[in-house]
Amino acid sequence: MAGAPPTLALFTDLYELTMAQAFWQSGRTGPATFSLFVRTYPENRAYFVFAGLQECLDYLEGLRFERQDLEYLRSLALFDEGFLEYLGELRFTGSVRAMAEATVFFANEPVIEVTAPIIEGQIVETYLLNQVNVQTLLATKASRLVHAARGRTLVDFGARRTHGLDAADKLARVSYMAGFAGTSNCAAGQRYGIPTFGTMAHSFVTSFVDEIESFRAYAASFPDSTTLLVDSYDTVEGTKRAIEVGQEMKRQGHRLRALRLDSGDLAELSARARALLDEAGLDDVELFASGGLDEHDVDALLEAGAPIDGFGVGTKLGVSADAPWTDCAYKLVEFEGRPVLKLSPEKVSLPGPKQCFRRRDRSGAFDGDVIACAHETGPSDAEPLLHTVMDGGRRLGPDPTLQKLRTRFVEEFAALPERHKALVNPALYDVAISSELQRLQRTVARQHDS
Amino acid sequence: MAGAPPTLALFTDLYELTMAQAFWQSGRTGPATFSLFVRTYPENRAYFVFAGLQECLDYLEGLRFERQDLEYLRSLALFDEGFLEYLGELRFTGSVRAMAEATVFFANEPVIEVTAPIIEGQIVETYLLNQVNVQTLLATKASRLVHAARGRTLVDFGARRTHGLDAADKLARVSYMAGFAGTSNCAAGQRYGIPTFGTMAHSFVTSFVDEIESFRAYAASFPDSTTLLVDSYDTVEGTKRAIEVGQEMKRQGHRLRALRLDSGDLAELSARARALLDEAGLDDVELFASGGLDEHDVDALLEAGAPIDGFGVGTKLGVSADAPWTDCAYKLVEFEGRPVLKLSPEKVSLPGPKQCFRRRDRSGAFDGDVIACAHETGPSDAEPLLHTVMDGGRRLGPDPTLQKLRTRFVEEFAALPERHKALVNPALYDVAISSELQRLQRTVARQHDS
Repeated sequence: MAGAPPTLALFTDLYELTMAQAFWQSGRTGPATFSLFVRTYPENRAYFVFAGLQECLDYLEGLRFERQDLEYLRSLALFDEGFLEYLGELRFTGSVRAMAEATVFFANEPVIEVTAPIIEGQIVETYLLNQVNVQTLLATKASRLVHAARGRTLVDFGARRTHGLDAADKLARVSYMAGFAGTSNCAAGQRYGIPTFGTMAHSFVTSFVDEIESFRAYAASFPDSTTLLVDSYDTVEGTKRAIEVGQEMKRQGHRLRALRLDSGDLAELSARARALLDEAGLDDVELFASGGLDEHDVDALLEAGAPIDGFGVGTKLGVSADAPWTDCAYKLVEFEGRPVLKLSPEKVSLPGPKQCFRRRDRSGAFDGDVIACAHETGPSDAEPLLHTVMDGGRRLGPDPTLQKLRTRFVEEFAALPERHKALVNPALYDVAISSELQRLQRTVARQHDS
Repeated sequence: MAGAPPTLALFTDLYELTMAQAFWQSGRTGPATFSLFVRTYPENRAYFVFAGLQECLDYLEGLRFERQDLEYLRSLALFDEGFLEYLGELRFTGSVRAMAEATVFFANEPVIEVTAPIIEGQIVETYLLNQVNVQTLLATKASRLVHAARGRTLVDFGARRTHGLDAADKLARVSYMAGFAGTSNCAAGQRYGIPTFGTMAHSFVTSFVDEIESFRAYAASFPDSTTLLVDSYDTVEGTKRAIEVGQEMKRQGHRLRALRLDSGDLAELSARARALLDEAGLDDVELFASGGLDEHDVDALLEAGAPIDGFGVGTKLGVSADAPWTDCAYKLVEFEGRPVLKLSPEKVSLPGPKQCFRRRDRSGAFDGDVIACAHETGPSDAEPLLHTVMDGGRRLGPDPTLQKLRTRFVEEFAALPERHKALVNPALYDVAISSELQRLQRTVARQHDS
């Protein structure tokens, strides 16, 4: 109903295809390796959470130009018929080495390396960057909320403010991976099997002449899963009315689940609401807060001792408001066995296929990474992070389930020392470049000195 | 290949559906009006560009819960069978009043008003907010670039950094509406008939041992539409090599279209490249600039007299980096003939269905708006901005073409006085509330004073 489903092969920048034709016409079709990494940290970030691999593998396995795609390209009057025929036959036949999803990684570390005939490796750039960027961006933001919430329940309320439908879907996925309890987004709940949560909107309350009647009507429909929104007119008065309804529910053998506070001074109002609930014998009714919150707000509220049991976070999570993009890049690092780089100011890249090695201290905490050439064996006490996940254009095994990624993230995040997780001015994690890779970079750079 | 196409009916927050059940079970199914508006301006904004209506109307016309949607909802063990049956039959039967897409609008002005049985009006909230938010956000950002570029060519390069695929698609649409020449995104080019543009990437250049050979290979494939990227190693040396190739192309009766500068001091490098090109008799070769540019960069470059003919803008446009969300809301304003509002701190809403009236001065420039009750006739010299576009769940006419919206935007933007378009600290536009609407707000608010 929103037009034909998107044709993923055409989700590519035009230059990928014009370069492909130039490669093809000049007979440059040998193997190439491309490396996907994030160049720099946004402010107040010292790590990233890798996400998006699964969609990238889906895309690579399914890549093909359908007839209508080729017709469109033909209409541009840019492409040779022979090349379009070649495109029609093109499948992704390469291999992919990647970190596992939910891995914590750092600037300049490759998270995906694609090795394939250069045209296949080139034309997938736009999609791979798009999906790794949005999912990694949102997973990283979600992890900051999880850190701030100190074990309190978090729910993704972002669907109405994300940049489009795909972002809402991916937000639900990666925030759940990072430890959220669930999402308000039913489509994502269905697609990924994520628990869904909901309360009520102001419109429900204001549709009734009396606030308390709106509470009673909702409680009648959901006698064991009601969260009442109490700030439509006045939070304290709304809380008193909710307590009246909570007591009625209790007398009927049910339980009011929670109150939601959505505006005003949440530290003060939550303390007030908690006291009123406890006095009324409703100490099992939880307090849920929302309203434009980010990780700094959640941290400050809990630091101040606000008795809030859970948070709904929407906009600022959903658009990663303080850092709405990652500086990710997808660079050619080797062609036909020759390592390559670019020397553009502030964008000097590391040549050749690579591996990342991670050390841990005796407690299991991350203790420094090394970026090395792919063939290096690395420090004996370090673990390689990139593994082959696709070969000959096919996955080597099934994807981990979202539940498994969620478990993995708990372990990953626990192993990242606290100083790198600070919400403000986190300490930089130590990432070294192996001496062999440094030598290679110098050698390749020298070849281009005029 | 990326799973089943999204089920749009489930693209909704769970609470929309739980409220719907509570409305249904309590027999509250009368007509309601909801108003969609933006509450406040982000920093350095004093207007918005309305976009997204077409997708909203598509969605409303096609809204239906399919069997698998109902099965999913049933699995949540929250919903009554009778209600699920009702949902299965539900279609949107209401009416929509809206501003035309590409209209310049201001804070608190309704851009869409939906009047429908309350359940139908309620459950469409998430989708309508999502699409109006992302499209309006990006259209507004694009208009700032158009303003800064003073007629220079602008191309959307954002697809790799937008938040997902849907955002990339919508970015191409609304930036073209706002005056961009086109997009690099082939999928959007195909879907919307937008011109596509491309140059070459560093990977093409670095795949060759010699930069000049990469230029020759590309030029051989595209003898009349080549833009050479000259900063892979050193911009000035790259420019000299591009000039050599440009002269070869000229001798063969072709024309090098442009050079692309992607890093470094673009003001200085563009002046240097222009001088070198002109000296070499290639004064018809254009200069195209890119590399993390936003409207402030474009403005500063042109202010400094940089001889740049066109700009490719990606990331900071694609995520509206300085203002990545709008403070948009969808509020119940009337139920069963009774005007309603909410009084939450800093979120007090305007009750009842509304109309916006716009005055123009003698030159045709916008000269102040009035938000009024829907039934008011408004000032005699003012034009009403909201028109009925859907009735009984059906569009009243075909959508304007994207070309037509593009033309409309030129007229709209020309009529917005310069002081409101300033990139920094723009002057606020005058929006009054009619005295009748003010009276109504006071009356309704008084009914809720305890």
